Amino acid sequence: MRQSNKGPKSLLKEDNSYLHIYFLSSYKYFFMEANNSRRNFISKAAVIAGGQVLLAKPLLSMTPFVSGFNESFTVGQVMDKFISEVPSGILKETVDTLKSGHKEMEVKGIVTSAFATVEVIKKTIEIGANFIIAHEPTFYNHLDDTAWLKNDSVFEYKNDLLQKNNIAVWRNHDYIHRLSPDPVTSSFLEKLNWKQYTTKAIPSLATLPSMHLEQVIAYLKEKIGIQQVRYIGDLQQDCSKLLFMLGAVGSKAHFTGLRQIKPDVLICGEISEWETAEYIRDARSKGDKVSLIVLGHIASEETGSEFMATWLKSKFPSINTTFISSGPSLSFL
Amino acid sequence: MRQSNKGPKSLLKEDNSYLHIYFLSSYKYFFMEANNSRRNFISKAAVIAGGQVLLAKPLLSMTPFVSGFNESFTVGQVMDKFISEVPSGILKETVDTLKSGHKEMEVKGIVTSAFATVEVIKKTIEIGANFIIAHEPTFYNHLDDTAWLKNDSVFEYKNDLLQKNNIAVWRNHDYIHRLSPDPVTSSFLEKLNWKQYTTKAIPSLATLPSMHLEQVIAYLKEKIGIQQVRYIGDLQQDCSKLLFMLGAVGSKAHFTGLRQIKPDVLICGEISEWETAEYIRDARSKGDKVSLIVLGHIASEETGSEFMATWLKSKFPSINTTFISSGPSLSFL
Repeated sequence: MRQSNKGPKSLLKEDNSYLHIYFLSSYKYFFMEANNSRRNFISKAAVIAGGQVLLAKPLLSMTPFVSGFNESFTVGQVMDKFISEVPSGILKETVDTLKSGHKEMEVKGIVTSAFATVEVIKKTIEIGANFIIAHEPTFYNHLDDTAWLKNDSVFEYKNDLLQKNNIAVWRNHDYIHRLSPDPVTSSFLEKLNWKQYTTKAIPSLATLPSMHLEQVIAYLKEKIGIQQVRYIGDLQQDCSKLLFMLGAVGSKAHFTGLRQIKPDVLICGEISEWETAEYIRDARSKGDKVSLIVLGHIASEETGSEFMATWLKSKFPSINTTFISSGPSLSFL
Repeated sequence: MRQSNKGPKSLLKEDNSYLHIYFLSSYKYFFMEANNSRRNFISKAAVIAGGQVLLAKPLLSMTPFVSGFNESFTVGQVMDKFISEVPSGILKETVDTLKSGHKEMEVKGIVTSAFATVEVIKKTIEIGANFIIAHEPTFYNHLDDTAWLKNDSVFEYKNDLLQKNNIAVWRNHDYIHRLSPDPVTSSFLEKLNWKQYTTKAIPSLATLPSMHLEQVIAYLKEKIGIQQVRYIGDLQQDCSKLLFMLGAVGSKAHFTGLRQIKPDVLICGEISEWETAEYIRDARSKGDKVSLIVLGHIASEETGSEFMATWLKSKFPSINTTFISSGPSLSFL
């Protein structure tokens, strides 16, 4: 683990690599690498079906932003406007590439969603939009590498659907997480009405009046509208310090958060059972009063796509923008 | 993806790398690599606190196996006996190393469990045993790399508990999965009374008289004794072809299984929501009649540790051997 002074807070989801970049405050960045996979990152990111990689050169200067009603914009102008608001600016290494379409396409309408699922794409076509801004991968892996999906009927069906209907898909993941404060976590805490319990220094930590774990779970379920959660802990345990590590940031980031913040509850989107869950279980056996709540990946990050729709409506009022929930993928029985 | 003729069936759990090795039959091996992480495998595996890496040279010839009552054995003799029954023999690259203790220790009693949790270690000490054979990592990552856990209070507590009580822990993961048929899947299907519906060619596929998905889920829950499952699918869907990919074999192995077997239901231990779940969801939107059941990692593989206890009792009747369930880590609410 090493600290870095590069850029603002950063969160790159791990994907079968030891690379984790996770922020715990606006001022500290934790880079944990156990192999050199990061070195191969951009070369892999270039393998994108029908897409293109964001260039490192300053495109913003070539595509000046013009706001207003009754104006039309290209996909690239919308992307560039968002990126211009991110303190780090254009990232050389990012998964935030076009998965379909191109930057010169004229935007007819935008849909924001956690995932550009087949259902979300069909709804996008139905409402006459042609640009999806998704938070997560389109083709089932972090880099949207499609080389291994050749002749895969599900991939081909989805890719054809996008191509035949001229739908652009941009993943906005690394950029949105780099805004300060991270709108994904921030919008989630706003939805819970718990933002007043956070601080600027650690915006992902809410220090609340004490509640039982059972009450925390019930509150989360009601506010986010989810069927169930998975958890580890004593339901009668008093909880005050709640650390939110939404999405799937990886177990090493979870462990760092647990060690540094010592929360009463770690609230995650997605975990590896054989990593984070076992660590929490052993910590509890040791005597630590720490619990875990696993919300589900989409449930934990979907408010970020709602934020994205609100942002687009304020910056591009002439574009018809719609948030479409991709909904949780998994049910409980 | 490339096929290989090396060795018998193989299943190495992915851990933050693109390495996947998964078997679909006794005759076909699918090696999917997207980076060179495998090359670094053994060097990383050498970083083990208080443990040692299995040597590539033929230890078996140096430690002849002697069976019988009232005899004593070392940790190494028990390990070597198991490895001698695996068609591939000693693996040069494996996570199946001693995480604590050493091969020369005299065995006073053996505990088998999915995980050597702190609770399982305490129970082992209580019953006077000193050797745990676990299926999964001890220190929260696939390679049991502990360099990044320096000064971690949970790691130190667990490691001290092992060292102070002279407990040996051996992970038996790669070896047990290489027996033919794989006892982890095989014992699971036996517990379900569904082994008669499998074939030698694809022992992880059960072709049953048609049942509704809801009935499959209810049956699994009852037989394995689990509280809930997560699933994707139509509960009234007719299911006949059930593909079992237990544990956390990784999404690319899941996709290969789905493409090649075309099951009605994929039954997994653990998945990445943003990979396998999204693929299943899109496949269903495309019109494929495929469902997903996620059992939980331990629930899906714990019968393998029961098999291990039975195997030890038959081969080492003089050793007091106990299966201890590490139980599911996560609850539902």
